[in-house]
Amino acid sequence: MNAADAMRSAIAQADGVKGTTYPNPPVGAVILDRAGAIAGVGATQPPGGPHAEVVALRRAGERAVGGVAVVTLEPCNHHGRTPPCVDALVKSGVSRVVYSVSDPNPVAAGGAKRLADAGLSVEVGVLAEDVAGGALRQWLHRQRTGRPHVTWKFASSIDGRSAAADGSSQWITSEAARADVHRLRAVADAIVVGTGTVFGDDPTLTARLPDGSLAERQPLRVVVGEREISPDARVLNDDSRTMVIRTRDPHEVVRALSDRTDVLLEGGPTVAGAFLRAGVVDRILAYVAPILLGGPITVVDDVGVASIVQAQRWRYDGVLRFGPDLRMSLVPG
Amino acid sequence: MNAADAMRSAIAQADGVKGTTYPNPPVGAVILDRAGAIAGVGATQPPGGPHAEVVALRRAGERAVGGVAVVTLEPCNHHGRTPPCVDALVKSGVSRVVYSVSDPNPVAAGGAKRLADAGLSVEVGVLAEDVAGGALRQWLHRQRTGRPHVTWKFASSIDGRSAAADGSSQWITSEAARADVHRLRAVADAIVVGTGTVFGDDPTLTARLPDGSLAERQPLRVVVGEREISPDARVLNDDSRTMVIRTRDPHEVVRALSDRTDVLLEGGPTVAGAFLRAGVVDRILAYVAPILLGGPITVVDDVGVASIVQAQRWRYDGVLRFGPDLRMSLVPG
Ligand SMILES: NC(=O)c1ccc[n+]([C@@H]2O[C@H](COP(=O)([O-])OP(=O)(O)OC[C@H]3O[C@@H](n4cnc5c(N)ncnc54)[C@H](OP(=O)(O)O)[C@@H]3O)[C@@H](O)[C@H]2O)c1
Ligand SMILES: NC(=O)c1ccc[n+]([C@@H]2O[C@H](COP(=O)([O-])OP(=O)(O)OC[C@H]3O[C@@H](n4cnc5c(N)ncnc54)[C@H](OP(=O)(O)O)[C@@H]3O)[C@@H](O)[C@H]2O)c1
Repeated sequence: MNAADAMRSAIAQADGVKGTTYPNPPVGAVILDRAGAIAGVGATQPPGGPHAEVVALRRAGERAVGGVAVVTLEPCNHHGRTPPCVDALVKSGVSRVVYSVSDPNPVAAGGAKRLADAGLSVEVGVLAEDVAGGALRQWLHRQRTGRPHVTWKFASSIDGRSAAADGSSQWITSEAARADVHRLRAVADAIVVGTGTVFGDDPTLTARLPDGSLAERQPLRVVVGEREISPDARVLNDDSRTMVIRTRDPHEVVRALSDRTDVLLEGGPTVAGAFLRAGVVDRILAYVAPILLGGPITVVDDVGVASIVQAQRWRYDGVLRFGPDLRMSLVPG
Repeated sequence: MNAADAMRSAIAQADGVKGTTYPNPPVGAVILDRAGAIAGVGATQPPGGPHAEVVALRRAGERAVGGVAVVTLEPCNHHGRTPPCVDALVKSGVSRVVYSVSDPNPVAAGGAKRLADAGLSVEVGVLAEDVAGGALRQWLHRQRTGRPHVTWKFASSIDGRSAAADGSSQWITSEAARADVHRLRAVADAIVVGTGTVFGDDPTLTARLPDGSLAERQPLRVVVGEREISPDARVLNDDSRTMVIRTRDPHEVVRALSDRTDVLLEGGPTVAGAFLRAGVVDRILAYVAPILLGGPITVVDDVGVASIVQAQRWRYDGVLRFGPDLRMSLVPG
């Protein structure tokens, strides 16, 4: 197996633990033996548990000697709750380390240099775009900016409506698209809505499995706005924890969530507009159904643009199909 | 060369003459010699000129003997302004005819049977979806329904706006997307807008080349609505002909264009809604820029949907990238 194929396998490992590793990054690792066969795979364990490289090395055992370690993130070089991964790699006997993305954290970084100093051959950058845009996206953003990564997710018709004229909006998008949203929720740290969505839809805001049961992991539910919501609102039920932030200032919300990494903003249109105007949205995920609705209810009302030259400019970084619907991903342009 | 590759070449021939063959269909043909090499290619010539098969056979000459004719549409079997193509094929000495789509026109059809009766081997259906969704789409629609094919084209932001709050809308989409629109116009038979677009934007509604000059072929410009437009409106200039239809009834517009094949509805939102409510739109082409605008000006206002269960259901049949923008094609779902 070549390094790129092994990295794809490491990426799959990382995807599998996204959402369970906080405050550590979700990392995947693969150990190839001397002959290029997979000797062990691993992913970051919950906080306090071993990192991806260590899990994979344990599985590989003696077969690591003379082999290659393939890791999605630069192996760490610091004593946290666990010893540095670079020590484990040097001891294991691998002769080469291939990783995708450098660690932007100055405390943990320096791993590549330590490995090279110990005489290992080191290669960086394999499938870097896939890794940086995938499971590590939010963690890298947090390392670079000190802020949580905010994804604004919306579901709409092709004419930009989030509900029909009478306010009905259930099942705009297909089961396949809704299942994807629940997967995103299950790996997010928080879901944010405005009080208007709670008053209008009374959603539970939980991550559910296709059979309707609760996913193992539930994000924190966050309700934003000055009005008091009813103690009977479903968002306050026991399925997960809920934070009510009585403000209209998106910056205050981001600050209140400053110890989180992956925040999902689910709207409605008023709160989405406020976050967009404040410039605190890092990614847009638009689930667009092939339907037309017309009418007054749009996905976002006011994004602070008066004239076309002030348009908020983004850039498509991926289009996927979910059943009959399209999911477009956009990042700042 | 195999039949599918030859058909791809025939499709390219047909694409090159789309818009110039009315009332005949834009067809492409390729003659392969005995060894499978291309001996001749051809496309439908302007009315009165030879059909695609005849052009290709003339170019192939003696090399057609024992070869294969590959054609996008079933060869015609009737004496119109030109003799039947099936006669030319039988005389040419080809031993096999491969075509993509059957002719729905009962007068011209029967070509396949004639060829088989004359001892040729006949194969149908090669790349049928590409051909039926491509240059022949509008012609086939007309044959089947007796009505012109109407494409509603719009340009929007990802939040479904066709202009910023102050009405400014120039260059919502990129140069690449606009060039595609001008290519569509150059092969369309008519472009329809409402009086509102004429009063608001005073467009010329011409097909232009990337250097700004007029394309060789210009569609009929059609303005719909009860108000009288200014004699100085650019849409009335000498660049092309213009039809002013003083009605608000989309069915009346379609009837007035009943001798056309390919009609491009360019809006604005009021007229687009009227056509959608009347059920006379056969395809949607949405050019969606990766920008956010917000505000009150949407691509369509009222499509006759009060509640989500009444949503107009379409189906994506293609997504293309034009520069930074996406073009989504939708057909009735
Ligand atoms: N299609 C989708 O993806 C989607 C997703 C979510 C919701 N929705 C739809 O959206 C509808 C609700 O719309 P909405 O706009 O009322 O919901 P919203 O944006 O969730 O809530 C609006 C409320 O949030 C508070 N708020 C917080 N920050 C604000 C700020 N900076 N400026 C102004 N207000 C702020 C205000 O209430 P206070 O007075 O309490 O401050 C405001 O009335 C629902 O019925 C639902 O159907 C659709
Ligand atoms: N982004 C895009 O793709 C795009 C494309 C075109 C236009 N636009 C924008 O759209 C704006 C104009 O909007 P608009 O809605 O006024 O334009 P419109 O739809 O082109 O014209 C509306 C007018 O058409 C007439 N009309 C014809 N059939 C009608 C019907 N069934 N019901 C009602 N009225 C009917 C009415 O005028 P009468 O009183 O004369 O009957 C009506 O005021 C322009 O400023 C332009 O920027 C955007």
